[in-house]
Amino acid sequence: MKTSNLLLATQRENPSDAETVSHQLMIKAGLIRQVAAGIYNWLPTGKKVLRKVEEIIRKEMDSSGAQEILMPMVQPTSLWEESGRIQQYGKELLVFQDRHERSFCLGPTHEEVITDLCRNVIKSHRELPITLYQIQTKFRDEIRPRFGVMRSREFIMKDAYSFDLSPEGLDKSYSTMKEAYLNIFHNLGLEYRIVKADSGAIGGSDSEEFHILADSGEDLLAFSDSSDYAINAELLVELQDEQDPNSLEGKPSPDGKGNLLLKKGIEVGHIFKLGRKYSESLKLRVQGDDGDVYPEMGCYGIGASRIIAASIEQNHDEKGIIWPKSLCPYEVVIVEANPKKKESIKNTCEEVYELLASNNVDVLWDDRDKRPGVKFTDMELIGIPIMIIIGDKSTEDNKVEIKVRLEEKTERVSPQDILQKLSEIS
Amino acid sequence: MKTSNLLLATQRENPSDAETVSHQLMIKAGLIRQVAAGIYNWLPTGKKVLRKVEEIIRKEMDSSGAQEILMPMVQPTSLWEESGRIQQYGKELLVFQDRHERSFCLGPTHEEVITDLCRNVIKSHRELPITLYQIQTKFRDEIRPRFGVMRSREFIMKDAYSFDLSPEGLDKSYSTMKEAYLNIFHNLGLEYRIVKADSGAIGGSDSEEFHILADSGEDLLAFSDSSDYAINAELLVELQDEQDPNSLEGKPSPDGKGNLLLKKGIEVGHIFKLGRKYSESLKLRVQGDDGDVYPEMGCYGIGASRIIAASIEQNHDEKGIIWPKSLCPYEVVIVEANPKKKESIKNTCEEVYELLASNNVDVLWDDRDKRPGVKFTDMELIGIPIMIIIGDKSTEDNKVEIKVRLEEKTERVSPQDILQKLSEIS
Repeated sequence: MKTSNLLLATQRENPSDAETVSHQLMIKAGLIRQVAAGIYNWLPTGKKVLRKVEEIIRKEMDSSGAQEILMPMVQPTSLWEESGRIQQYGKELLVFQDRHERSFCLGPTHEEVITDLCRNVIKSHRELPITLYQIQTKFRDEIRPRFGVMRSREFIMKDAYSFDLSPEGLDKSYSTMKEAYLNIFHNLGLEYRIVKADSGAIGGSDSEEFHILADSGEDLLAFSDSSDYAINAELLVELQDEQDPNSLEGKPSPDGKGNLLLKKGIEVGHIFKLGRKYSESLKLRVQGDDGDVYPEMGCYGIGASRIIAASIEQNHDEKGIIWPKSLCPYEVVIVEANPKKKESIKNTCEEVYELLASNNVDVLWDDRDKRPGVKFTDMELIGIPIMIIIGDKSTEDNKVEIKVRLEEKTERVSPQDILQKLSEIS
Repeated sequence: MKTSNLLLATQRENPSDAETVSHQLMIKAGLIRQVAAGIYNWLPTGKKVLRKVEEIIRKEMDSSGAQEILMPMVQPTSLWEESGRIQQYGKELLVFQDRHERSFCLGPTHEEVITDLCRNVIKSHRELPITLYQIQTKFRDEIRPRFGVMRSREFIMKDAYSFDLSPEGLDKSYSTMKEAYLNIFHNLGLEYRIVKADSGAIGGSDSEEFHILADSGEDLLAFSDSSDYAINAELLVELQDEQDPNSLEGKPSPDGKGNLLLKKGIEVGHIFKLGRKYSESLKLRVQGDDGDVYPEMGCYGIGASRIIAASIEQNHDEKGIIWPKSLCPYEVVIVEANPKKKESIKNTCEEVYELLASNNVDVLWDDRDKRPGVKFTDMELIGIPIMIIIGDKSTEDNKVEIKVRLEEKTERVSPQDILQKLSEIS
């Protein structure tokens, strides 16, 4: 891809309404643009990162045996009346009427729709266990949307739902999904923690949250310094009748092993054991060997769009975004430093571009008619890990300059040594 | 994938509300299930086909130089007031208020949002031409949704928008997009026609429709029997002040070459030259060499979910769906005909399954505890092109039976010859 064909949309000014670093950088680097409060366009660079997140999730979900489906964004509220959640959810559930004055809502989650689907198609216990998932657009009418896509109203989630015949089956489906989540977070390459959590408005018993660690995180997490014990500090405060989560620091860990440490995190994943809450309220029954059974359900969410903001909160510097290798929108950018529009410089760029593209390197060529400084600033803002600078000096020594985003020093190599050099860097 | 892990959801009964063959077959083959009028769940088999359609479209859009973005489903109606379309669109535009009583709508199309985006980010004529696209969920509040996903309310579209500095530039962008469409329809492997069309409610001048031919199509298309001339018959009737489109059959072609033939089609793609309708009404201006310019826009849609229904209308028989190679949910199904649950039969199935999977054949293994006849009926209904039947006889002669969906005769081959045989078939 050449930047001359790309809607780069970088900007220098900080957007006035952006309070968090990730919100600022996502606007400045041209990843997103606001359409209305809490509603965003994903621009080409942002969409590319979003697709990478989705593919990392999809791959592990498929490997785990979960099956991809697609449920609608517009849901009949009659299903939410059946489950009894229509009152509980409050105004975050955006309800409206269609042209025939039938009542619908924009789905913030899909427990009701999936349970309705399963009661219509699953007839026999032999069809269970089953885990279904989707990667889909959701809407939650936040009273005060903020922090860009971190707390937006329209957002992309992966949500999965498991159906089992027994609590033991649910334990197994839950473990399988937790394993898939561990792989997903490992593959994302971000620093994260799993903590015990409150199951909140969705209902059910066991639940764990996946947090990406960041000093700017809204959640306080408490860990033992000498065991695996980890819990959302808010939940621990509740369990222990404490007042201030910050007072937990240094106290003995509830598991009796070591003392508590506190860190801040951003919740990007949540897995629950729902039990029979929805199967009973929506009357999803399957024929078992000894009569009808209400399946035990689990539900498993990942905030796909939120992961991107959380990744940036965790990894950035004063120049811009620092991507984990898994998420960078391009692996390499060729900066054409060619103010006098020399044919020879353009030719070298072309040659290097073809070399990289034909070797499956995801490469961007910054061929804009701009000063080199502007290009460096833009590419560091977007956070492309490796820059190959081709300018006047390249025509003299027949070498290109390679600069790694996170290193100060640069190195000059011959075009034919670029691939070797790139493999050493990554 | 094994069917024992798959939400197959096939059924024998014809759904009572399904008037068209594609609607009937999509329900019976377990591709979709209705959630509410005109709103559907895509089940695993259907979602797999949908992903194939999306990937065929995405590949050609990317090759054409168009850039993928993602715009929101929820749009502020203020943009529709600016364009003046809010009245024109009528009740198909589903309008509602959020919790703060601000007015929004569910996007049936995105001319307003993309024009708003471009007026915010494009500053200079040097950033044009540009073509942006998305594959996204849309909503149109049809008064009478019917025919399954053919005329649903929530649906998946690829919509693209081009921005040029001059009408000549628009001609070029339009041609590029038409070329991409030709590739997409070629790769889908369906019989289709391009016809001149009315530009309708979206506004603008030139427009062409892409129709998948099917006797059940709602649109009548008129072609010359001796030239490339082709037009939507409704438009020709209007142009010629005729009454009945059917009366056109056999009349001289308006291009003076030959006589008209009529065929029925299903519109699945539409490309328009919009001109400056939206750039002027929404005040998208860019700095040109001689002052400000309102860009010339084009817009280009493909009904991704609709293509699947149209494909089935074109290709099916009394047994079920007939997929073009590009869209089949699985290439091969292994039917385990094993009523006595013999270990040796299961082992042969496993062996063949591993062989195919490791050679990148997209294979399904029907390992359900069902009679062979039930499995044959299901797999022909779903339309899997090749069946490999492994049963009692296989343990005797160490061969498997290969049956092609569209042929009566079967053939017995040794497991080690399967790959060779498959390559001969396809």
